[in-house]
Amino acid sequence: MPFSLSQLEHPIVQAPLGGGPSTPALAAAVSEAGGLGFLAAGYRTPDAVRSDIAELRGLTARPFGLNIFVPGPASGDAAALERYAAALRDEADRLGVELGEPRYDDDGWEDKLALARREAVPVVAFTFGCPDASVVTQLQAAGCAAWVTVTTPAEAVAAADAGADALIVQGVEAGGHRGSYDGEAPGDIGLLALLQLVRAVTDRPLVATGGIATGLGVAAVLAGGAAAAQLGTAFMCAPEAGTSEAHRRAIRGGARTALTRAFTGRTARGIENRFMREHEGEAPHAYPEVNNLTARLRAAARERGDGDAFHLWAGQAHPLAEELPAGELVRKLADEAREALRSAGGALAHRPEGRRQDP
Amino acid sequence: MPFSLSQLEHPIVQAPLGGGPSTPALAAAVSEAGGLGFLAAGYRTPDAVRSDIAELRGLTARPFGLNIFVPGPASGDAAALERYAAALRDEADRLGVELGEPRYDDDGWEDKLALARREAVPVVAFTFGCPDASVVTQLQAAGCAAWVTVTTPAEAVAAADAGADALIVQGVEAGGHRGSYDGEAPGDIGLLALLQLVRAVTDRPLVATGGIATGLGVAAVLAGGAAAAQLGTAFMCAPEAGTSEAHRRAIRGGARTALTRAFTGRTARGIENRFMREHEGEAPHAYPEVNNLTARLRAAARERGDGDAFHLWAGQAHPLAEELPAGELVRKLADEAREALRSAGGALAHRPEGRRQDP
Repeated sequence: MPFSLSQLEHPIVQAPLGGGPSTPALAAAVSEAGGLGFLAAGYRTPDAVRSDIAELRGLTARPFGLNIFVPGPASGDAAALERYAAALRDEADRLGVELGEPRYDDDGWEDKLALARREAVPVVAFTFGCPDASVVTQLQAAGCAAWVTVTTPAEAVAAADAGADALIVQGVEAGGHRGSYDGEAPGDIGLLALLQLVRAVTDRPLVATGGIATGLGVAAVLAGGAAAAQLGTAFMCAPEAGTSEAHRRAIRGGARTALTRAFTGRTARGIENRFMREHEGEAPHAYPEVNNLTARLRAAARERGDGDAFHLWAGQAHPLAEELPAGELVRKLADEAREALRSAGGALAHRPEGRRQDP
Repeated sequence: MPFSLSQLEHPIVQAPLGGGPSTPALAAAVSEAGGLGFLAAGYRTPDAVRSDIAELRGLTARPFGLNIFVPGPASGDAAALERYAAALRDEADRLGVELGEPRYDDDGWEDKLALARREAVPVVAFTFGCPDASVVTQLQAAGCAAWVTVTTPAEAVAAADAGADALIVQGVEAGGHRGSYDGEAPGDIGLLALLQLVRAVTDRPLVATGGIATGLGVAAVLAGGAAAAQLGTAFMCAPEAGTSEAHRRAIRGGARTALTRAFTGRTARGIENRFMREHEGEAPHAYPEVNNLTARLRAAARERGDGDAFHLWAGQAHPLAEELPAGELVRKLADEAREALRSAGGALAHRPEGRRQDP
């Protein structure tokens, strides 16, 4: 039987957290606790993903998800990429690395789809676009549920039309990349407005994500019509996460976040740092070309613990992230959410009409 | 006894909707239905506000609110204002009006405070800043509850320290002006993230606003810890509202919104139109100077029904606004919210642990 959200003990989904923070241990801990853990296929070779799945399955027999990036068009603007490379040369020199080749790739799209089918991954989620209906059908035939990340009502309609089993509704509060289909139109709709707008155009189950960090946030999206809440930053300080020390420090701090394409060529939210401030204006919309251009530079900065020179992805509620083991966090969030719903429902139900008194 | 949110039959507050949409009839309809109606003191003379209050009190004996703008510093950059005036000359010529004087004023601050105290207005809300603790104390002594609009956790701490009875927590989704204390730092935190961040720093009652348009939205913020939901755009198509026809048409349409300071010199969210696209880059941060500069121009465009040349304030969920009498809308929102909370609470409560099965 394909995965359904109602199977989860707790309606809590871990965001895929590509690029380091996501680990099989983190996903396994979330799934073992009754939530849904996620692996990130993005930036990894199909072989590495296969090995992640094997490791995860060694840790839990529970359902989990795998997130795959939908490839977009190549940039085609070689001159803009060259200009950006020139602008970043000093950064690379300072860190003692070469810039990468700003090349296009499809991140192993077909191989990763084939792997997901072969492994019958319980949930396969997509970001950066809507896969063709045939891709969705093939996954479903292989026993996978297909989820699509959406950031506008129009994207939600397209995903529902393609047969998606559920939609990940991503508000502008979310850390990391905006999941928008069109990288040049990242959009800006807040989660709560988007949930209502999407609910008005589709009856697919919705997984809400963006700025959810506490049980109150989980309760809010469930009351707002979501079948589950997806949290990313909230899990990034867990011991099971692969988050670097500099990144953990920044998350626990109070600095503001901003949207930027300076690191990867696609709009993403991170804690504002010097690199963002200095290079945002120069970066072209060109993913994955810019990602490949800056990858070594960012890795070097991360190794040095230089939080001013790599991407500190984080959602707007990042100061609320706790340093708890992931399973404990899942249970705590679910308990708090239950209590919040009980309390809000009770307060409304017990508001007697007879209490309406003139002032 | 001073007003408390628990007095309301329905935890639904109408946003003040300054500049036309707000009318005593609208506020009265909302209060009569068991919500809390609001009058806008902004842009109006103290005499006009007094007459609004009298008219409202002729229609309902229920509590209501009055919103007052906290005056900020004068711009001091006369050259920037002159440049912007020059940039707008063609717009004014086209509409056959003179531009206004880009002068500073405090919008009748002391007179309006005195009026609110004299009238013992049940709720006095503030936007654009935090009044001094002495202002809050004097209002409370006069029988008024004092609410302060906040857009960041730091603003929430300041408002709580000043003694505010409740905080209006405004997400970036909200239509109209950002309530930020510092006009040059309007901020960008989404409602759901902000609710959690503010709850972490104060236990004051919270009124959530920004992109709430349906009972699901109301339920979401109540579950997220708010004592009430404040809706603006959702009421703008009500027959009791003073919203112009061109504005109503735009609200019912699907166009995107954006933040702009082109109309007033303070950042506000409106449905994107030509004026915003053409002038956003030129407009200085200078409120109320720019507001006074453009007032006649915008009034003329509104009279002509030219929706490309005046401010179409609207929140991100504007396409969901319904053309219902305001009282009917209050009851519908409350009923839907109750049902949504019941349904979300039930779904969580009945998720049996025994259901955790391996896939």
